[in-house]
Amino acid sequence: MSRSGVAVPGFRASGVRCGIKERGLDVALLVSDVPAAAAGVFTRSTVVGAPVTINRTRIRSGRGRAIIANSGCSNVAMGARGLRDAREMGALAARVLGCAEEEVFLASTGVIGEPLPMAKLKEGIVRAGEALAPDGLGDAAAAIMTTDTVPKLAATRTRVGGRTVSVAGIAKGSGMIEPHMATMLAFVLTDAAVAPPYLRQALRSAADGSFNRVTVDGEASTSDTALLLANGMAENPRLRSASSPGAQAFSGALREVCQELARAIARDGEGATKLVTVRIRGARNGEEAMRAARRVANSVLVKTALFGGDANWGRILQTVGAAEVRINLARAEVSLAGVRVFHKGASAGAAARQRAQERLRSKEVELEVDLAAGRGEALVWTCDLSYDYVRINAEYRT
Amino acid sequence: MSRSGVAVPGFRASGVRCGIKERGLDVALLVSDVPAAAAGVFTRSTVVGAPVTINRTRIRSGRGRAIIANSGCSNVAMGARGLRDAREMGALAARVLGCAEEEVFLASTGVIGEPLPMAKLKEGIVRAGEALAPDGLGDAAAAIMTTDTVPKLAATRTRVGGRTVSVAGIAKGSGMIEPHMATMLAFVLTDAAVAPPYLRQALRSAADGSFNRVTVDGEASTSDTALLLANGMAENPRLRSASSPGAQAFSGALREVCQELARAIARDGEGATKLVTVRIRGARNGEEAMRAARRVANSVLVKTALFGGDANWGRILQTVGAAEVRINLARAEVSLAGVRVFHKGASAGAAARQRAQERLRSKEVELEVDLAAGRGEALVWTCDLSYDYVRINAEYRT
Repeated sequence: MSRSGVAVPGFRASGVRCGIKERGLDVALLVSDVPAAAAGVFTRSTVVGAPVTINRTRIRSGRGRAIIANSGCSNVAMGARGLRDAREMGALAARVLGCAEEEVFLASTGVIGEPLPMAKLKEGIVRAGEALAPDGLGDAAAAIMTTDTVPKLAATRTRVGGRTVSVAGIAKGSGMIEPHMATMLAFVLTDAAVAPPYLRQALRSAADGSFNRVTVDGEASTSDTALLLANGMAENPRLRSASSPGAQAFSGALREVCQELARAIARDGEGATKLVTVRIRGARNGEEAMRAARRVANSVLVKTALFGGDANWGRILQTVGAAEVRINLARAEVSLAGVRVFHKGASAGAAARQRAQERLRSKEVELEVDLAAGRGEALVWTCDLSYDYVRINAEYRT
Repeated sequence: MSRSGVAVPGFRASGVRCGIKERGLDVALLVSDVPAAAAGVFTRSTVVGAPVTINRTRIRSGRGRAIIANSGCSNVAMGARGLRDAREMGALAARVLGCAEEEVFLASTGVIGEPLPMAKLKEGIVRAGEALAPDGLGDAAAAIMTTDTVPKLAATRTRVGGRTVSVAGIAKGSGMIEPHMATMLAFVLTDAAVAPPYLRQALRSAADGSFNRVTVDGEASTSDTALLLANGMAENPRLRSASSPGAQAFSGALREVCQELARAIARDGEGATKLVTVRIRGARNGEEAMRAARRVANSVLVKTALFGGDANWGRILQTVGAAEVRINLARAEVSLAGVRVFHKGASAGAAARQRAQERLRSKEVELEVDLAAGRGEALVWTCDLSYDYVRINAEYRT
């Protein structure tokens, strides 16, 4: 999958700098040339940014044209002023694009509790409109970065009803919140023709299998937003439900893009040195499997051990136990980076541990736990926890 | 409250070294001269050490004489061998003390997955028996330390039914698990005369108000154990229920000792530089208040901000939101170290933040959040998260 020249027919995008952040691009604009079907999933937090509040209303129509986003300021906990500024941000974009305000979705990521610098943003939105280009997604990906160290872009193609369909997306997210400005955003574009109700269903399912399976620090942010626009330019027979011909190919491509973005978020976690896949098997049911996987993925004891390259199965078992997840210890197994280090209720020995420790030096590692209590399975992506995580989150001052 | 010469009439204790740990005392013995009422509370983890399994059975009698504990090896995840070794450990102590095996409670804390070195331990138990002394609690406190940097001892006296009653306890716990050997243990002794059913009730209530409100890293260990022995030597009229005369004084004293131990555990958290009290008010109910308090206390974003001395109310609000706890943001308030930094839906301004930041340099700080959604309240003690937490848990190798 190439990252240069990623384009989806009928979409243009841009990323420009208007000076909200100290350096780098900070305004992203994505637009469909024609009205598009739209779907979104948002944070479950009870504390949300103004853009989330507005998007939740606008997404109900199932239609939209554009996404305007900024980094450097999250517009969270700003009361009535926050809502006013967010609406204004959307109106400015609508004016530049010549569409209705209600067709514009919003996202802001960065510091909590500071007002959006509207004068700067206004200039930025005008400039973003001028910079729109079919291959502008890379710039847009850069413009939504906060503590991210790399832009995150993914794209794929598939065949739907005899037509080639493109799916491409960008994302940001490395820690979850200010002051070192994080939170998760993902914007995915496709030229597939999809009816809004099925688009919503496909996005929910893809998000469940991707963005909802990634964790850096266990926080769900105030601004988490995934938006999907489908403009129909591929002219495939419109996908109306999961049983429409080609729907499976489409949802597979969508999931592939979302998973690549989710893994990129975990790999670029604040201070991360490793992408970690946590795989739980043999749970009593799927819910317990996911609870165990999240618990392992968020355990600071497990994450610091991984940073240290320590094949520490004891910490993994204890945190599964602490989550009060059923485990049959006498038959349970733990494998680290493919090496079985715990089985039959006991350590697999010093040699296995040593072998696992060597393999844990890799930049991508997998932890696998078989709880031996049933057939439930789950998978979560995360990263390790290093000195740099503490530095980023302790030393920085807003 | 003096920590030297703490003694409870009719109890003796000791702490000796037998060489399980690389250095320091590692075997503790506590014994009542006469049979005592006994109560215990244990970890809710589904992965527990052999001592916990055995204690759970023995505590049912409501009677006991002694506690034998070691540090340096937790005897967790050792299968049948672990149970055999734990029983042997208790039998050795019973032989030294001349009591029945069933009257001896057990605790082991330290590395997971390694066998107890029984030859060393046997010698240690004999030596601990010889070293028993009325003022030996301080040595016992030292002998259960793992990553703890200081022994934890608390004592108080009160009047019950015209008699002076003593309550004294020791505890350990700084992180929750191997390899840098932690987990929470607390042993409390009293000469009060208390019927076992009420003793159990009083301990549960005291633990809920103390040990169950402390968190260092969000982990509940495989070995968490609090044991309470009451030998009746104070000859007060036996306390049979919460309405017995003097029961309130007794439970107050018990809670005081347990709270002092719990706060000492948080203050001595791995790498901690501050004792942090998290106080939630105005939650929809008590359950939501506790959920919010635990969430704030365990948030690595909040804890790293505290390490950095950053008055970061945004991180506190986002983690309450992420816990899906009801909050009325327009009326909510956040105070840090006594300074209100967020109110009426917005920042209280840069001056307040600056003032809070200065006060956050203190070794003891309080975070207070009023959710403005009801009357629920909760309190949790925790600590900050520093580079040393990462060092202790990443660099150490078993």
